[in-house]
Amino acid sequence: MLTGVQVLLLGGDARQLEVIRKLCELDATVTVCGFDGLHSSLDGAMHAEFDESLFESVDALLLPAVGTDDQGLIHTVFSDRELKLTEKHVAVLPPHCTIYTGMAKPYLRQLCEGRNLKLVELFDRDDVAIYNSIPTAEGALMIAIQNTDITIHGSESMVLGFGRTGFTMARALQGLGAKVKVGVRRSEHFARASEMGFEPFYISALLQNTGNIDLIFNTIPTMIVTAQIIANLPSRAVVIDLASRPGGTDFRFAEKRGIKAILAPGLPGIVAPKTAGRIIAECLSQLILDDTIKRGNGI
Amino acid sequence: MLTGVQVLLLGGDARQLEVIRKLCELDATVTVCGFDGLHSSLDGAMHAEFDESLFESVDALLLPAVGTDDQGLIHTVFSDRELKLTEKHVAVLPPHCTIYTGMAKPYLRQLCEGRNLKLVELFDRDDVAIYNSIPTAEGALMIAIQNTDITIHGSESMVLGFGRTGFTMARALQGLGAKVKVGVRRSEHFARASEMGFEPFYISALLQNTGNIDLIFNTIPTMIVTAQIIANLPSRAVVIDLASRPGGTDFRFAEKRGIKAILAPGLPGIVAPKTAGRIIAECLSQLILDDTIKRGNGI
Repeated sequence: MLTGVQVLLLGGDARQLEVIRKLCELDATVTVCGFDGLHSSLDGAMHAEFDESLFESVDALLLPAVGTDDQGLIHTVFSDRELKLTEKHVAVLPPHCTIYTGMAKPYLRQLCEGRNLKLVELFDRDDVAIYNSIPTAEGALMIAIQNTDITIHGSESMVLGFGRTGFTMARALQGLGAKVKVGVRRSEHFARASEMGFEPFYISALLQNTGNIDLIFNTIPTMIVTAQIIANLPSRAVVIDLASRPGGTDFRFAEKRGIKAILAPGLPGIVAPKTAGRIIAECLSQLILDDTIKRGNGI
Repeated sequence: MLTGVQVLLLGGDARQLEVIRKLCELDATVTVCGFDGLHSSLDGAMHAEFDESLFESVDALLLPAVGTDDQGLIHTVFSDRELKLTEKHVAVLPPHCTIYTGMAKPYLRQLCEGRNLKLVELFDRDDVAIYNSIPTAEGALMIAIQNTDITIHGSESMVLGFGRTGFTMARALQGLGAKVKVGVRRSEHFARASEMGFEPFYISALLQNTGNIDLIFNTIPTMIVTAQIIANLPSRAVVIDLASRPGGTDFRFAEKRGIKAILAPGLPGIVAPKTAGRIIAECLSQLILDDTIKRGNGI
């Protein structure tokens, strides 16, 4: 339980509702800003005006998926009011307060470093990234079904990268009966992909593997689906890029050649906000609990 | 090869383009009506004006998915002209001519019976229905992903019916990591569903199985998702009805109770027209070939 733990939650979207629900269930004292436009109740959380005094006795400060932008603005979908996090807010936080976000921009990182506060980026964690890869893969399948005139079943599909997202994507495609090639860099990934019934190849031989491909799912966040690769694709091919912005595809050249290429970052919050919220809520509540126990033990 | 075989193809959508391609590839003599608005070429098929004389020496007459409506009108997406099949056309067909369609309405059935012509309904065939169940299941997954805020993975899903479509639907859900209950009527289906790792139950116990369901995929074409069943569903549940119109769901009551219920017939032609066209083309060309050989042998 999180009885007595003070949590301040600022902004966000439907995913944060799951976080609020979970923390209230665990008896934390939850104060929220940026939810004044929400029509439903908030399971016992307290609405508050955004003000420095809120930050005084906070044990955990929760920011949304993308913590703040480069000016400190916090994204809010349930309010029209502006939430801007600045030094004066952070200065009031107790030294033991941990700041949690999905991923941090330099602005937020600098704020935390300046005050020597612990910053946790949840989307960096392997467990969160693996859980998030599930809605990502389902969203990618949805986009593939919408943008092709063939079935996934029996298609010549290719997944670039065999990390946390690539692994899930390849399995989802296999689950629907696609033929799945997996582009890897490491020999242990080659071995695992082979063991799982995929057709692995090394990324260095990508060009030679693109001649007869219906679908490419890229998970590698550097330029990999280059103009040269796109020039070699059959005209029916569709590229779905799941890497963080700006993706790993030469979108300009794809458009010029008439190849459909779609950048689709942030799918979990779009296709399955409830599941994505639960993923964050589960991880977050465990981390806050661990932190509370540590502090209680004087560690 | 189908050299010398005279085929007349009337109307239809993108699926028929695959049929035309395949038949021309096999060297049949293909005449088409209802494609004058098409911008691309037709692989050697001849465009013709809709006229009785076209019917004179035809070996195979091909109509689209829904052959004709109740007035004899043939659905065409590539033409604005009206194609109306009447007795005077059918009267000119040679007695050995076979008429192929997806499914026939009484109007078409009566026309063929009146002249004692063989009518083949392709969607009635087990092989075609099984192949078509693949794009149907993928379309249903797409609708499910679009209409829920959770992932298919880990969801409590239910498939009603374990026939040609139910079997594929259950496997597709399992492939994405859903927990899959399957409602069956026959003990051999119960056994098979159990062997495949699903959780089977008898339809007679449907009500007792609906308490904690996220998604219902119905494939049974009689009223089965009744008001009583819908009243017992959790409010988050989504019903996707894949049975032929009017489906097996009390849509009126679902709307009243605020349960999302979607009738989604004819998915193959919508989500994967190329694959759906190939399914028809493969089956059709084999049937015409078999027929030609039989006639050649004087059978």
